Amino acid sequence: MFEARITQGAVLKKLVEALKELVTEGNFDVSSTGLQLQAMDSSHVCLVSLALREDGFEHFRCDRNMAMGIHFQNLSKILKCAGNEDTITLKAEDNADQLTLMFESSNQDRISDFDLKLMSIESEHLGIPDQEYSAEIKMPSSEYQRIVRDLTSIGDTVLISATKEGIKFSTSGDVGTANVTLRHNTTPEKPEEQTIIDLKEPVALTFALRYLNNFAKATPLAPVVKLSLTKDLPIVVEYQIGELGAVKFYLAPKIDDEDQMGEDEAQS
Amino acid sequence: MFEARITQGAVLKKLVEALKELVTEGNFDVSSTGLQLQAMDSSHVCLVSLALREDGFEHFRCDRNMAMGIHFQNLSKILKCAGNEDTITLKAEDNADQLTLMFESSNQDRISDFDLKLMSIESEHLGIPDQEYSAEIKMPSSEYQRIVRDLTSIGDTVLISATKEGIKFSTSGDVGTANVTLRHNTTPEKPEEQTIIDLKEPVALTFALRYLNNFAKATPLAPVVKLSLTKDLPIVVEYQIGELGAVKFYLAPKIDDEDQMGEDEAQS
Amino acid sequence: MFEARITQGAVLKKLVEALKELVTEGNFDVSSTGLQLQAMDSSHVCLVSLALREDGFEHFRCDRNMAMGIHFQNLSKILKCAGNEDTITLKAEDNADQLTLMFESSNQDRISDFDLKLMSIESEHLGIPDQEYSAEIKMPSSEYQRIVRDLTSIGDTVLISATKEGIKFSTSGDVGTANVTLRHNTTPEKPEEQTIIDLKEPVALTFALRYLNNFAKATPLAPVVKLSLTKDLPIVVEYQIGELGAVKFYLAPKIDDEDQMGEDEAQS
Repeated sequence: MFEARITQGAVLKKLVEALKELVTEGNFDVSSTGLQLQAMDSSHVCLVSLALREDGFEHFRCDRNMAMGIHFQNLSKILKCAGNEDTITLKAEDNADQLTLMFESSNQDRISDFDLKLMSIESEHLGIPDQEYSAEIKMPSSEYQRIVRDLTSIGDTVLISATKEGIKFSTSGDVGTANVTLRHNTTPEKPEEQTIIDLKEPVALTFALRYLNNFAKATPLAPVVKLSLTKDLPIVVEYQIGELGAVKFYLAPKIDDEDQMGEDEAQS
Repeated sequence: MFEARITQGAVLKKLVEALKELVTEGNFDVSSTGLQLQAMDSSHVCLVSLALREDGFEHFRCDRNMAMGIHFQNLSKILKCAGNEDTITLKAEDNADQLTLMFESSNQDRISDFDLKLMSIESEHLGIPDQEYSAEIKMPSSEYQRIVRDLTSIGDTVLISATKEGIKFSTSGDVGTANVTLRHNTTPEKPEEQTIIDLKEPVALTFALRYLNNFAKATPLAPVVKLSLTKDLPIVVEYQIGELGAVKFYLAPKIDDEDQMGEDEAQS
Repeated sequence: MFEARITQGAVLKKLVEALKELVTEGNFDVSSTGLQLQAMDSSHVCLVSLALREDGFEHFRCDRNMAMGIHFQNLSKILKCAGNEDTITLKAEDNADQLTLMFESSNQDRISDFDLKLMSIESEHLGIPDQEYSAEIKMPSSEYQRIVRDLTSIGDTVLISATKEGIKFSTSGDVGTANVTLRHNTTPEKPEEQTIIDLKEPVALTFALRYLNNFAKATPLAPVVKLSLTKDLPIVVEYQIGELGAVKFYLAPKIDDEDQMGEDEAQS
């Protein structure tokens, strides 16, 4: 059987809220080491990779590896019934066709249990090679969210350019053009307010703003986001979820010929 | 003539907000003892009964019994123009075709008067017999609101089961199944945070969630809600409005054959 | 060239939010004395007149008079990307076809620049004669906003009557009738909470509520609004924007024959 207990249920709520727009359905792959999810978004343009470590849970037990097919909108409906302070326990029998979610309020006066029907989803786990990146940028996740949201009101694609001095986001559209620059800045005392640029070589890549915006739904999970950029490779947008694990979003850059294509999001 | 004055105008605003979705139109029956309203909802499935005592008003005068036909959406439009701190006075001549509402701000700088056109509505006042119930449950009104709202996202009907230990709300739908249990609990110091189950015999009844949800619009009126249950009888969902009176909602249970009928809300 | 710098960028944001519904496009007329805008609303019923003095800016330079044709929805999109605490600089070359907006965050970590495409808009500057008014009323802008919003839910037009004692707003519609009276009142210590009626002779005029409501979008710009009324002349609704300047809205009264016309907003 599988059983995982997390005291801060709010994390699970935020996680599913972050993913449910992008991922319609996907497998929770559970094993003795934790819980993993790898899924393409519904338009098959970007990839989401989630890994939660077993030692990040208050209690974790998994007797047999299992793939539990999750419909994310349905899981979201159930998690909305959990209070932010509730302890959440996930439970499933081996080969079960349902996942049980138990919510306990802190004073234990209210106990809720929900059975979510599981789906059978075919999927293959892609091996994502470890990679050296030309530029790795850590910045406040709220700043990232704001910039991609703002630029989405101006244009469809964004050119992200990283140099030693800073990271620049540029777009253009009917309204005009826009450039937002964040400087490398380690002066704020709180690490989560710093902008840190770790550069091997300057890099400039173009991405569809729509997806970068979607990734920003993970902002409530972490105060810092890390962007990793290398020429011709997908950008990685990564949020560390405390000690529990991380969620990473991958999106391929637009190649030059496609810059003119506007809404057409064909991939290289 | 009729005249009633209430210093805390916010109560009247909340009351009409609570009723206006359920009740399209109904008669305010005024007499020397106070103001009453009895109305079926527009689908003729549930009954609303409101009683405000004359001594709950700062000033109350009614020379002749009158039935004033109210269009609730229109009354709501007018009451939205009252400030939460305003004193509200209701006034009507005998046999008037309009109800005058006067709003005075606390510093008396702003004075508003509105004339609401009255309607002629046929209605008969049902005698609702006083009744011993198998189970009476008092619980925080916010908790009731939350449970019926949460379950509405999962299913169409709810089975409410009361035992000595607690009250359980159960539903099921495409997503899966859900059970929420509140335990009898008198430990919180504040009475309005307690869950008190007064049980003559265990009872389990099924209701349409849509209406229970609608009743919860009265939540701002009172910190506590009382549910009264007896086999084959309508549930009573009751909110005490301070010293002013009470609003009660009645909804017949679904009988067993109808459990399969889903959206069809036929009544026994 | 033209260059204007304002430390409190929030003012510019609020100003464009206030105007963008009413004014689709208009010319920013800049000269050495400041920035002016005069525009009819898109239905050509009311007139907006904005004047910002050069000494209200932190820095202001204008070498040559210019008319910069602004699409207000587009300018609004760009200004939404400015933080409330940002310093905003406007810049344009002589005869430029674009206006550059620079936003600097207070700690200078983020620098954004946007180029807004300019339009060519034909317009003639109307001379609005200085005028003695029969009645000038200063009142809290929030009170004005509230009254016209409330009355809009009851009727289409409002009769504004000013006497020595106070100012009365009256309307009627399907629901019934409504009167809201504000008394002349200089007792509050804060001038912005006072209602001051400066009366030469009593006056009563009827206006379309829809426009008065639109003018109230300027409420965040100023705590006080001034209404100026004279028989057969347009009402002036005026907001002082601190030391920077003022925005005035002009709306012609409905003449008696038109009172019956309802939604038809023909002007005298």
